[in-house]
Amino acid sequence: MSGSTRDLAHPDAAALELTGVLFALSDPARLEIVRRLAVAGSLEVAECQPDSGPIPKSTLSHHLKTLREAGLVRNVPRGRQRSLTLRRDDLDARFPGLLAAVL
Amino acid sequence: MSGSTRDLAHPDAAALELTGVLFALSDPARLEIVRRLAVAGSLEVAECQPDSGPIPKSTLSHHLKTLREAGLVRNVPRGRQRSLTLRRDDLDARFPGLLAAVL
Repeated sequence: MSGSTRDLAHPDAAALELTGVLFALSDPARLEIVRRLAVAGSLEVAECQPDSGPIPKSTLSHHLKTLREAGLVRNVPRGRQRSLTLRRDDLDARFPGLLAAVL
Repeated sequence: MSGSTRDLAHPDAAALELTGVLFALSDPARLEIVRRLAVAGSLEVAECQPDSGPIPKSTLSHHLKTLREAGLVRNVPRGRQRSLTLRRDDLDARFPGLLAAVL
């Protein structure tokens, strides 16, 4: 199943832009996902629902897309689910101190 | 002239919200203004025009309003002009390390 349609695009670390990363972090639901990933290591999509109450799947999906396209998270298939992880090493290398300041 | 209509509202340091600050910083023109203020100390409004070329005054005014309302900058009358300064102490106290990571 390599190179299947389940593989999503992720920007290279060198292509990450600070303003894009800041925008991705500027929404409370997205910031909560990033903070939870920093603690949990990895989460499935359903586990990214806000603590304050579930949001529509389409909204959650949009948030995860924004985070992935900005380079905050990796979203890869794992069995029938998808697994999300924080791109901590890439972010720390590109924008030293930023993640530490918002987590 | 104390309390004149030239006095604009500024949020208290304790009321600053991280997501609002991140959003204010997520626009290239606003980030450039913040970086320039960090170097210059204070600037007049006209000095906040981007290096890449002038933007409409209404657009610049909107950017400065977004920065002020998020708590990034102070905008106070000085003679017939207005003077902008970065709220560095307030930001460093509320969100340690954040400014250093984006400047």
